[in-house]
Amino acid sequence: MSEAAGGPLFFKVVTVEEARRSVLEALGWSTASRARGVEELAIEECAGRVLAADLVAPEDVPGFPRSTVDGYAVRAQDTYGAGESLPAYLVLAGELRMGEAPEKPLGQGECMAVATGGALPEGADAVVMLEHTETPGDGTVAVMRPVSPGENLVRPGEDIREGQVVLPRGRVLRPPDLGVAAALGYTRLPVYARPRVAIISTGDELVPPGEKPGPGQVRDVNACALAAAVRGEGGIPRLLGIVPDDRDALDRALREGLESDCVIVSGGSSVGARDLVAGALAELGEPGVLVHGVAVRPGKPVIIAVARGKPVYGLPGHPVSALVTFYLLVRPVIRYLAGADPFPVEPTVRARLGRNLASRAGVEEYVRVSLTREGAQLVAHPVLGKSGLISTLARAWGLVRIPAEATGLAEGEEVEVVAIPPL
Amino acid sequence: MSEAAGGPLFFKVVTVEEARRSVLEALGWSTASRARGVEELAIEECAGRVLAADLVAPEDVPGFPRSTVDGYAVRAQDTYGAGESLPAYLVLAGELRMGEAPEKPLGQGECMAVATGGALPEGADAVVMLEHTETPGDGTVAVMRPVSPGENLVRPGEDIREGQVVLPRGRVLRPPDLGVAAALGYTRLPVYARPRVAIISTGDELVPPGEKPGPGQVRDVNACALAAAVRGEGGIPRLLGIVPDDRDALDRALREGLESDCVIVSGGSSVGARDLVAGALAELGEPGVLVHGVAVRPGKPVIIAVARGKPVYGLPGHPVSALVTFYLLVRPVIRYLAGADPFPVEPTVRARLGRNLASRAGVEEYVRVSLTREGAQLVAHPVLGKSGLISTLARAWGLVRIPAEATGLAEGEEVEVVAIPPL
Repeated sequence: MSEAAGGPLFFKVVTVEEARRSVLEALGWSTASRARGVEELAIEECAGRVLAADLVAPEDVPGFPRSTVDGYAVRAQDTYGAGESLPAYLVLAGELRMGEAPEKPLGQGECMAVATGGALPEGADAVVMLEHTETPGDGTVAVMRPVSPGENLVRPGEDIREGQVVLPRGRVLRPPDLGVAAALGYTRLPVYARPRVAIISTGDELVPPGEKPGPGQVRDVNACALAAAVRGEGGIPRLLGIVPDDRDALDRALREGLESDCVIVSGGSSVGARDLVAGALAELGEPGVLVHGVAVRPGKPVIIAVARGKPVYGLPGHPVSALVTFYLLVRPVIRYLAGADPFPVEPTVRARLGRNLASRAGVEEYVRVSLTREGAQLVAHPVLGKSGLISTLARAWGLVRIPAEATGLAEGEEVEVVAIPPL
Repeated sequence: MSEAAGGPLFFKVVTVEEARRSVLEALGWSTASRARGVEELAIEECAGRVLAADLVAPEDVPGFPRSTVDGYAVRAQDTYGAGESLPAYLVLAGELRMGEAPEKPLGQGECMAVATGGALPEGADAVVMLEHTETPGDGTVAVMRPVSPGENLVRPGEDIREGQVVLPRGRVLRPPDLGVAAALGYTRLPVYARPRVAIISTGDELVPPGEKPGPGQVRDVNACALAAAVRGEGGIPRLLGIVPDDRDALDRALREGLESDCVIVSGGSSVGARDLVAGALAELGEPGVLVHGVAVRPGKPVIIAVARGKPVYGLPGHPVSALVTFYLLVRPVIRYLAGADPFPVEPTVRARLGRNLASRAGVEEYVRVSLTREGAQLVAHPVLGKSGLISTLARAWGLVRIPAEATGLAEGEEVEVVAIPPL
């Protein structure tokens, strides 16, 4: 599909939601995970990685009945009717030692001392808490309160039952998930390979951050910022450097980029540069350009193509626009390529807006805000400034979304602020 | 301070807030950062790390006036009074090329073509957008709308001004922060050394996850889960292994632990084991045990000491209690030791509670909840189960806090859910 033959020029601007869905659908979202492979890692390396297979319990946890209190293992029926005035006297038949198997079963009318976590003997079906007993000193224990069967103990398999799926494929592994795996004896886990994301900066005016810009030149901000953002989402950034505003050079860089799992080109804020990127993306192959223009501020001139089954993003050159559109449009796809849910529930902070904000209807807007505390209340202060000024995003704690249908937000209104990670 | 001499037994149970503050105060929170050192890293390695010095701008960004649109560089006064019916005709005196310095200044009555991001020549103080011009073909440009000085351009230093503190010490570095550093030519940044956190598991019943538990034994879940949690907060976990319920062995492990910056001992759910840990912590040195018992569920029997200027935590052995108390009590201190704000603003998710929840007044309670969506509404479902069952925390998306003064929450009530990270 070339630009001349009815390409980008005829695209209609879509919403953020439509842009996300169309790319995910083209990548086969509805059918399966698109992670590029599976690797097996030591459990210590797995936090934050995405589980590549349902984890099934090979055994019960715990494997034996355990006390959850300090006290005495009993047969519950031996305590029925016991009370302060008429205790049940049980014969102390021994002490259960931590980490050891009970040596003998519990007989009728007997009890055994047990600490929290200790294994209960055959015959015991409840534990009486230490504080509900007395020891007269004659080899018996006086139980002052009855217990029901199952009280103050964990049954075999009560934590995890053999055969149960304890962690689902696609789970981003958190500390308690690794705890479950450890409880089952897993020391290695299968996780999805992290997606490789190629990052290309375009623009004749750009020099690498390590160089002193000449007259008319500026340092490339986006490669560094986007690489950090990619890493934050679990991707592996591959920095392909700065490409001049030249179609051959751009084509070569894109070919190299497509050896990764996703390509991000940033730059092209001028019409000419934008056309160059649009033209190159249009000729990468089927299905080609899916999105050309998104009704969002900052970030409208985004182009998204899919070629060879890989997403290719043309993000704006303005650093704020590049990062905001990364979070809105690229992040879900990186999560999908990582084997995780593209749209996890997103925590936010509620704050009172510190001033009126105008907004154009028909365009979803993301406003940079800093936060201050006024007593128990958080106040969100819009950080003003053009989207080419990276410092405005660095001064912001997060972003407030103004929906497309709104024409602004009023001072004092409650807003939800999404953080720029990490905190 | 020994237990016999008026130690732990006489401690009064404190609130979560009091426990946090007392430890941070003992560590000198009010005065300075306690990070153990500074290292200089390549900027690519700095995301999520904590900046160890105010970053000052060595130069203006941009270093020259840049156009923010495609159009023509002009002297604003040459456009005054221009309109559709009476355009201002300016002589096209050249084209400004991207990444190059303007060759000559702009004369009166002249304009020069410029693309977004291009450097403006001396004499130009505004840019007319392409769409507000026409080119009659006689070497002039017809300007149909006036512009004011400063319109459609970024002034030198408008993004970042030389000498300005652009990133404060203590900032957890995010993608836009690294973008700012790159814009200024920084390729390496000073960041605080990550705190080393020693992790000790105690209990005669424990075996490492890689071993098959014998009768009465269980696998150590806490070391693995706590190590992941420490890493998630920017710490370096040092696993010191499993220590039996033996005072000498525990003392040896604590001595080794104090070579790190923070020590976490987990285990001791039985009274005997708890006393063992309490006794060992009480004799580590001044100021000794600061907290013995926190009014929180799960997690009440937490012990916190400070010795040799280092915090030492005795967390409960029940895995849910160990992780919840880690998040509540250890996390702020690890952030402090990392040089960051111990109490960052915490994003949450609002959900409707799926059922009534009873709670004891006087104890702050943290309830594990899973989330489901009902239309646009999230519903939080309490995950019930004893705090010894790690699977209950793995099934949870996050935690709902019931304040100490409340006696429960009602079904349908709006609650704030804090996520168990990472998402």
